[in-house]
Amino acid sequence: MYTYDYLFNFTTEVFTKMGCDKADAEKAAKVFLAAELRGLASHGMIRIKDYYQLWEADRINTTPNIRIVHETPSTAVVDGDGAIGMIAATESMEVAIKKAKESGTGWVSTRGSNHFGIAGYYSMMALEHDMIGISMTNANPLVAPTFSISRLLGTNPIAVAIPAGRFPAFVADFSTTPIARGKLAVSEKKGEKTKLGYVQDENGKPTDDPSILKRGGSMLTLGGDYEHGSHKGYCMSAVVDIFSAVLSGANFGPFCPPSVAYLPVLEEKVGEGTGHFFGAMRIDAFQTAEAFKEQMDKWIETFKAAKPAPGHERVLIPGEPEREKEEQISKSGISIIPAVADDLSEIAHSLDIEFEKK
Amino acid sequence: MYTYDYLFNFTTEVFTKMGCDKADAEKAAKVFLAAELRGLASHGMIRIKDYYQLWEADRINTTPNIRIVHETPSTAVVDGDGAIGMIAATESMEVAIKKAKESGTGWVSTRGSNHFGIAGYYSMMALEHDMIGISMTNANPLVAPTFSISRLLGTNPIAVAIPAGRFPAFVADFSTTPIARGKLAVSEKKGEKTKLGYVQDENGKPTDDPSILKRGGSMLTLGGDYEHGSHKGYCMSAVVDIFSAVLSGANFGPFCPPSVAYLPVLEEKVGEGTGHFFGAMRIDAFQTAEAFKEQMDKWIETFKAAKPAPGHERVLIPGEPEREKEEQISKSGISIIPAVADDLSEIAHSLDIEFEKK
Repeated sequence: MYTYDYLFNFTTEVFTKMGCDKADAEKAAKVFLAAELRGLASHGMIRIKDYYQLWEADRINTTPNIRIVHETPSTAVVDGDGAIGMIAATESMEVAIKKAKESGTGWVSTRGSNHFGIAGYYSMMALEHDMIGISMTNANPLVAPTFSISRLLGTNPIAVAIPAGRFPAFVADFSTTPIARGKLAVSEKKGEKTKLGYVQDENGKPTDDPSILKRGGSMLTLGGDYEHGSHKGYCMSAVVDIFSAVLSGANFGPFCPPSVAYLPVLEEKVGEGTGHFFGAMRIDAFQTAEAFKEQMDKWIETFKAAKPAPGHERVLIPGEPEREKEEQISKSGISIIPAVADDLSEIAHSLDIEFEKK
Repeated sequence: MYTYDYLFNFTTEVFTKMGCDKADAEKAAKVFLAAELRGLASHGMIRIKDYYQLWEADRINTTPNIRIVHETPSTAVVDGDGAIGMIAATESMEVAIKKAKESGTGWVSTRGSNHFGIAGYYSMMALEHDMIGISMTNANPLVAPTFSISRLLGTNPIAVAIPAGRFPAFVADFSTTPIARGKLAVSEKKGEKTKLGYVQDENGKPTDDPSILKRGGSMLTLGGDYEHGSHKGYCMSAVVDIFSAVLSGANFGPFCPPSVAYLPVLEEKVGEGTGHFFGAMRIDAFQTAEAFKEQMDKWIETFKAAKPAPGHERVLIPGEPEREKEEQISKSGISIIPAVADDLSEIAHSLDIEFEKK
């Protein structure tokens, strides 16, 4: 088990060694650690290796000039200048929040970025300002639109954080596919089959083989098949792609640069880097924050009081499982699986810093 | 077959007879007719009877004082004052567009409204202004959150319209359930079973009985079951509910007033009427409209060029099927099924106007 501080300091050191200034390195470290605390290890320390490899391949800029390239009172396009995604995303969300303070809402489309980790982190930045926060991103093209076998979209997540009063905030953070890509990788590592309805093979045939993505297979959009609304998942994923990448001038759809160094970078580019989209809406741009939070409490109470289906103990409020994990992991400490600890150890060695395996 | 003009004039007359002024009646008629043209008859003339019955039950206000009750440069809350949903929604979207002209984007949450028909109509209002349009609404509570058997949410649709250049606009318009409620009603009328994955019975057991909603059953959220991401559909539906109803001060979740007169109105209210949410984003608040549209054309081309799965001829762009229907129906005329024509005929008789059955 590791303490938050130990891993936070280690991660900050890794990024500092890669050339980031301390404030930037800390911004990135916060997002990696937030994933670990919220029980989303698939987006936590395991991903440091990806960034290390991108840095080795000279595919990220650790001294970026992140800047607004276009703006109105409620909008901006931010150019991440090839930054680590967590840094470009944090600064973009800060711009959205600042715009919201001035104009009621703020909307930022970001280009020239990279994989930004958990979407929920940025949406939650709005909460302390009594704002609703929204974030989304495009991602590695591995998902096929309805009726297709071409991999044109990413798992394109959407996160929405909404403040409440007595209750913790409502935090929805979900990919627009039935499951996250990381879960396929876990099944594959365990040598298990996956469920039908997640992936298809290169000919569009349903399969339960979690390794199929390596042989031309593709992930399906939320809904699974057309009869069960996969075209709705496709619509959502497409909207995320367009808001994140077309609106900002990033690489959309199949052109989204892979977030791992072992995948080739396409020669054809249609924009700059990966794209994200952020929104912040001041609650008091609609009604007093007090009245809204009281009503949100009533909303949460109503949904908590829902009758569970047999075999279930309770109905969950979006964000509740992650918050409970956070409470638990904050106390217990963060566990890192041996394979990841080995990777971190190697990276530490190369960068001439310490990483204690425990 | 009816011409557009015939049905438009008839619908306008119906609402005028109910007490609407002509401009308002025309606003409503446009939305009903847009549904018919786009091949979404389930939201077209068939729904006039619902409004007629609501009017008879004194549950709508045909001379509403629709007004902004709170605003900032980029936001507003609109009180629909019990208006016909199409009228409150059209005026709300006009406010969003006006705000976007001034501040880059405009966001309106509307309360005190009623069923607004097809969500796509309002999002598409933004297109002629070179804006992205967004609309959503809460609806009759018939959908259960993941792990629950309580009917707390509606089919809560989301529509996003995005301008393109050479190609027609991208228009996504989808409910956050696997299918629309209307499709269940059609299966029921035909005496057919429906597919598994749409509904559950009052005990949470999967069923293919399309009439189960009448016996305590509930619809499932997009994704169907937890393993296939129903919690993501639940998240989306919940966000639509909160943006539409909590942010505006309308009746959220299970308190959303039913849009048909034969369902009882709950005694407990938590706000005013039904809620909607609208957004307008000026393209040139992010980049020039010209550059954006060129890139959208490239996006559409890329997705049109996707390899179809065996058994499919092409990959669709969101909005394409409805646009093709519109082209076809604009030429062929609008057909009304006999049962609906009978209803319209009766309504016409009661209101002392003409309706020709053909």
